Amino acid sequence: MQNEIHVKSGPVEVRGFRFSGVSAGLKTAAGAKDLGLIVADAPCAATAVFSANRVKAAPIYVTMERIKSGRLQAVVANSGCANSFTGKPGLKLARESCGLVAHAIGCDAKLIVPSSTGVIGHLYDLQKFGAGVRTAANQLRADAMEDFARAVMTTDTHPKMFSTRVRFAGTEATVAGVAKGSGMISPRMATMLAYLVTDAAVSPPQLRTALRAALPNSFNAVTVDGDMSTNDTVILMASGAAGNRALSRRDLEAYNAGVAAVCASLARELVYDGEGATKLVTIEVTGAKSPADAERCARQIANSPLVKTAFFGCDPNVGRILMAAGSSGAVVESDRLVLTIAGVKVASRGALLVDALPAAAEKMRAREFTVNLDLKLGRASATILTCDLSYDYVKINAEYTT
Amino acid sequence: MQNEIHVKSGPVEVRGFRFSGVSAGLKTAAGAKDLGLIVADAPCAATAVFSANRVKAAPIYVTMERIKSGRLQAVVANSGCANSFTGKPGLKLARESCGLVAHAIGCDAKLIVPSSTGVIGHLYDLQKFGAGVRTAANQLRADAMEDFARAVMTTDTHPKMFSTRVRFAGTEATVAGVAKGSGMISPRMATMLAYLVTDAAVSPPQLRTALRAALPNSFNAVTVDGDMSTNDTVILMASGAAGNRALSRRDLEAYNAGVAAVCASLARELVYDGEGATKLVTIEVTGAKSPADAERCARQIANSPLVKTAFFGCDPNVGRILMAAGSSGAVVESDRLVLTIAGVKVASRGALLVDALPAAAEKMRAREFTVNLDLKLGRASATILTCDLSYDYVKINAEYTT
Repeated sequence: MQNEIHVKSGPVEVRGFRFSGVSAGLKTAAGAKDLGLIVADAPCAATAVFSANRVKAAPIYVTMERIKSGRLQAVVANSGCANSFTGKPGLKLARESCGLVAHAIGCDAKLIVPSSTGVIGHLYDLQKFGAGVRTAANQLRADAMEDFARAVMTTDTHPKMFSTRVRFAGTEATVAGVAKGSGMISPRMATMLAYLVTDAAVSPPQLRTALRAALPNSFNAVTVDGDMSTNDTVILMASGAAGNRALSRRDLEAYNAGVAAVCASLARELVYDGEGATKLVTIEVTGAKSPADAERCARQIANSPLVKTAFFGCDPNVGRILMAAGSSGAVVESDRLVLTIAGVKVASRGALLVDALPAAAEKMRAREFTVNLDLKLGRASATILTCDLSYDYVKINAEYTT
Repeated sequence: MQNEIHVKSGPVEVRGFRFSGVSAGLKTAAGAKDLGLIVADAPCAATAVFSANRVKAAPIYVTMERIKSGRLQAVVANSGCANSFTGKPGLKLARESCGLVAHAIGCDAKLIVPSSTGVIGHLYDLQKFGAGVRTAANQLRADAMEDFARAVMTTDTHPKMFSTRVRFAGTEATVAGVAKGSGMISPRMATMLAYLVTDAAVSPPQLRTALRAALPNSFNAVTVDGDMSTNDTVILMASGAAGNRALSRRDLEAYNAGVAAVCASLARELVYDGEGATKLVTIEVTGAKSPADAERCARQIANSPLVKTAFFGCDPNVGRILMAAGSSGAVVESDRLVLTIAGVKVASRGALLVDALPAAAEKMRAREFTVNLDLKLGRASATILTCDLSYDYVKINAEYTT
């Protein structure tokens, strides 16, 4: 993930965009924000990536269809109901919802995309939704990004916003993003809901390239529970309000790095605030025979319930990590590998370093640490961010009902 | 899994075999049985299958080497230490352990195989082990199968033994098995430790066929946590004491069915007693496009932490089950499928049957139930047994230290 670029946490203003977030009564908790708008002053260049899940929610289909034009003006997002597994009535509801927004803000419905998160299999109440849209349209403000971020939260414990400034093309532009987690966070594809806005003047193909380049080291490199949502969406919209000149290759590199840095910060925050998470753990596999081996191995470690419960217990459980590595399908030779937990070497060339375990256990009390498994078989590497598996993960997911 | 065959739970005597189980001080709990012997009166026909994990324990390598001859006379098994990730010293320890048994019972060490379970990365104390072996050799009895079963337990809450009687080849023979779970229980291969003994006269190739045929619907069809141990082993030994004639094709079918039934009962019991499990859930996927799709889909549902916590909470969470199905890689069309939980149809042709949910939630309070997902796309099916994910799974695995 990007290190050199300064990424700031919290809300910012991005020229050309206004935000709002209100309570429309879609969530059961009274007064909780559950409907948000992002509205651009004019049609924007835009791109999006979606869940690879074969079961996709209605808003995803509508967004996939509309994003083809490379242009958007508004996003309407709600929590409390995912509008997933709702068949044709769900598609109709998603389109009608955009229609209500079009009427409230005065723009073409084809330039508006919906997104939803919450329980699956239910439709939300279009009356309530419409009333919420009207309130939200009245409250649109350039400095209300946090209201929007709160409106898309489900089991998240705090809103997630990051931004950076990119100097390029003779000027400076902002790239800002909002995301929500925190269950069904999974490998393999653009994950959860994330909205990025920028005032740069960038074409749809350039945006597409920037977003695709950012995924492998951000949203695709994190896991909370290995489960893939039906609603995962990342949208990137560019207002062009920065008024920069057309981008050179070098400008594009600077811009893409900014997008990547914001995506990486958002993705990291999703894991940090994963359901029940008490620790953020970076799983680094190095010295693998191939990139595919490195990734397979890192993901298997990152998703193993036995490894994740050991993290929760501050237990430097070498056996479980090696068990996961060995069952990943990657080539692993146990008499070569070196395993380091939280900076303490705990296994080397086929032997457990028993005396090192107490020091590793002590270091594992930190909120964040890294596990490095060097397979010593080649030069490929992969990094996946994960969290621990705690009582609270079970509590949250056994008590969160349909 | 086999239904027509009567399988009995609990210890039995099997002609030609004696058992014992003692405390050798390898487990930390004082007085807990941790070393067991199975000894045949004479060299036996035998076969075995092993963990597919790339990181294999020392006893696995020794057993793989010795089972090639198709003959065994004894098994020495211990809990409290897995002798895994122990390199050459581990291999030496496993061989020397068999040497001690050979001396104590008076047989060729090449006919003895070791197996170990417990923490990884440590060697056990050969002195203690040797003293245990001598005690165990003195206590060998035909009616001590339960002592052996107790000696291989780790986090299991009770010993696991099943047997059946097979009528064939003009006589009757017993097939009996002992297994231990209950964490690192996983799909894809022969799982955990299981020992089957029979008094039938069966050749090594016939035993091999019987065991391989039994795997897909027994040990390979269960999951507790999707993790694959480094020590998984299933051994089948035949004393020939039943004195049956050479087997016809029909006799073999009867015999194989008996082996399959005992394996299925043992495997089922592993899930029933899975770490922290409060429910045994059968995941049936039917109407899939291909057998591979059916299996992928069933496994993904069976291993999803979100689905498993919903089972724990008696929550008929249709969305999570469909999310898992959709992310499995199998072809799934959400407007066709029918989902039934504990006998209650909860989703059909793209719609959630909201009114049915309370009845499903009520039925999910049972200790055992079935989830059937009919994809309505073809004729392939697959069944996987799984358990729920409870607070106790986290407790057991966060507090069980290296």
